[in-house]
Amino acid sequence: MPKNAQWLLAARPQGIVSPSNFEWRETEVPELAEGQARVRVVYLSLDPTNRIWMEDRESYLPKLELGEVMRGVGLGVVEESKNPNLAVGDLVQGLLGWQRYYVSNGRDVSKLPKLPIPLDAYFGLLAHIGFTAYFGLLDIGKPKPGETLVVSAAAGAVGSLTGQIGKIKGCRVVGIAGGAAKCEWIVKELGFDAAIDYKSENVARALKRECPNGIDIYFDNVGGEILEAALANLNLGARIPLCGMISQYNNAAPAPGPRNLAMLLMKRALIQGFIVTDYASRFAEAGQEIVGWYLAGKLKYRTDITKGLEQAPATLAKLFEGTNQGKLLVEVSAAG
Amino acid sequence: MPKNAQWLLAARPQGIVSPSNFEWRETEVPELAEGQARVRVVYLSLDPTNRIWMEDRESYLPKLELGEVMRGVGLGVVEESKNPNLAVGDLVQGLLGWQRYYVSNGRDVSKLPKLPIPLDAYFGLLAHIGFTAYFGLLDIGKPKPGETLVVSAAAGAVGSLTGQIGKIKGCRVVGIAGGAAKCEWIVKELGFDAAIDYKSENVARALKRECPNGIDIYFDNVGGEILEAALANLNLGARIPLCGMISQYNNAAPAPGPRNLAMLLMKRALIQGFIVTDYASRFAEAGQEIVGWYLAGKLKYRTDITKGLEQAPATLAKLFEGTNQGKLLVEVSAAG
Repeated sequence: MPKNAQWLLAARPQGIVSPSNFEWRETEVPELAEGQARVRVVYLSLDPTNRIWMEDRESYLPKLELGEVMRGVGLGVVEESKNPNLAVGDLVQGLLGWQRYYVSNGRDVSKLPKLPIPLDAYFGLLAHIGFTAYFGLLDIGKPKPGETLVVSAAAGAVGSLTGQIGKIKGCRVVGIAGGAAKCEWIVKELGFDAAIDYKSENVARALKRECPNGIDIYFDNVGGEILEAALANLNLGARIPLCGMISQYNNAAPAPGPRNLAMLLMKRALIQGFIVTDYASRFAEAGQEIVGWYLAGKLKYRTDITKGLEQAPATLAKLFEGTNQGKLLVEVSAAG
Repeated sequence: MPKNAQWLLAARPQGIVSPSNFEWRETEVPELAEGQARVRVVYLSLDPTNRIWMEDRESYLPKLELGEVMRGVGLGVVEESKNPNLAVGDLVQGLLGWQRYYVSNGRDVSKLPKLPIPLDAYFGLLAHIGFTAYFGLLDIGKPKPGETLVVSAAAGAVGSLTGQIGKIKGCRVVGIAGGAAKCEWIVKELGFDAAIDYKSENVARALKRECPNGIDIYFDNVGGEILEAALANLNLGARIPLCGMISQYNNAAPAPGPRNLAMLLMKRALIQGFIVTDYASRFAEAGQEIVGWYLAGKLKYRTDITKGLEQAPATLAKLFEGTNQGKLLVEVSAAG
């Protein structure tokens, strides 16, 4: 049997997430019981929501206890199976955790279709990333041609897809990102109409300039001051899909909310939180459309891949520094 | 011709609204031109939103300029008409303003049907009050039998109807109001399941006690700390119709928003602002159902009527002190 290695949640983060929150453990992979399958983890997805899972409270998933394997979405290959629904070589996705091997009961992973896309695109384009962009924008944002869509964390995994889908739907798309390189990328490579660098300019003022007709949809990945700036520029009937609040996750104490929430009242606007798993019954439909856009050259993605499970904690910290360029993945084992 | 009298907006309120914001003017009622009608104002409705209209900025309506007649929803009787659509004796409603007489062009008022209800019920049960409760709760809140509905400003004009409609729809209804008398009224007279006196207890704790199954709908009339307390107790998929934020209207500087807005994310919940006029095409349908409930004894209302246009400014101040008991009206002229 191969050896397993795992990162355990060793301590709750106080403020910024840090490698000291995790503990490395080498262990055995258990023999499979009837109905089980051994999955070799290929990629782990690192996402802002990982920070939420480390807190000492329930979120949209049960609380993770100290000493448990760190929760993480992964993609893997079935290496051995005593489950009739999983065959050796099958590609699966699920909460595989921060470890080399995952033992599945067959119901806790999704079998992935073989698609004409690179393996990292299962995370860069599909899964919780692509489906979050797709359903958040289309189901809650309800974009109409000619409307103005603003996306925060626009060079991030979800934000970059959201803006491109907005373009496909005929919107004027304005992205907010940190730093000149990210801003250039979303405009020159992804076709956003404009970018706002929140590190170098006043976002509220820049939104007024770049959204001369106001904001119809604000796809929020960050919360905080940028949400406040967007609220100040809303159009009547605007929609705010609330996808994330990364600006808040590392706060030890909760920060005050936007001072102008009454804009929702004035503009008959909507903020709606959502979780991609609520749309699971429609993933196949969404995946087909997304892959179609990708193959037609209308949708690009970028992954930022760190090799080695050992690097997972340090790589997660990078996500909150905002230094990654593209969807952050850890390659736990070779894709081949 | 009768004499007119008017309250003009003389100064923008700084903090608490006060009689010194208004100026009294006596003037003539102009001769009617072709197409016009003279309306004698019977009731003026005083509402939290009046404070919004006094600000130096657009809201959901154009800004009111200094020196203009104070904006107000009124109910009146046509006394003279050169408009073929309005006959002497017709009952009309619209933005008649704080004055004795309004000259209508026939398109700026709605003709009211003659219904088997007292005249003050056109405001107590219908108009912007009743329709706000009806559409906010039913269209945004989407109550289902067995769900828990929490209403703030629950003894207020909109809140008291909202809670009763929630009971009709089979919800557990918890009202938040200020003071023992109001709390007793909503439970004993209106049939709410429980009341929380925000002046005498910690609302967050009381919500936990009174909503053992969590909150499915929070009908928000007040914003501020009570919104924060409600957010802390939301169920998955909760809905927050945002009807008003009266706790904020007298603030000179905007107060911070709720610190726990991320609950929207965790609970896939929704906050949606709305304005009753968006539902104008369905007022007739709603009115019929509301009057039916009233005649069946399922819906009660209470009005708090001050006599004399002269009293309008002082009466508005009372609204923000929360000392009124029921829908606040000013009787400008006799109903008969």
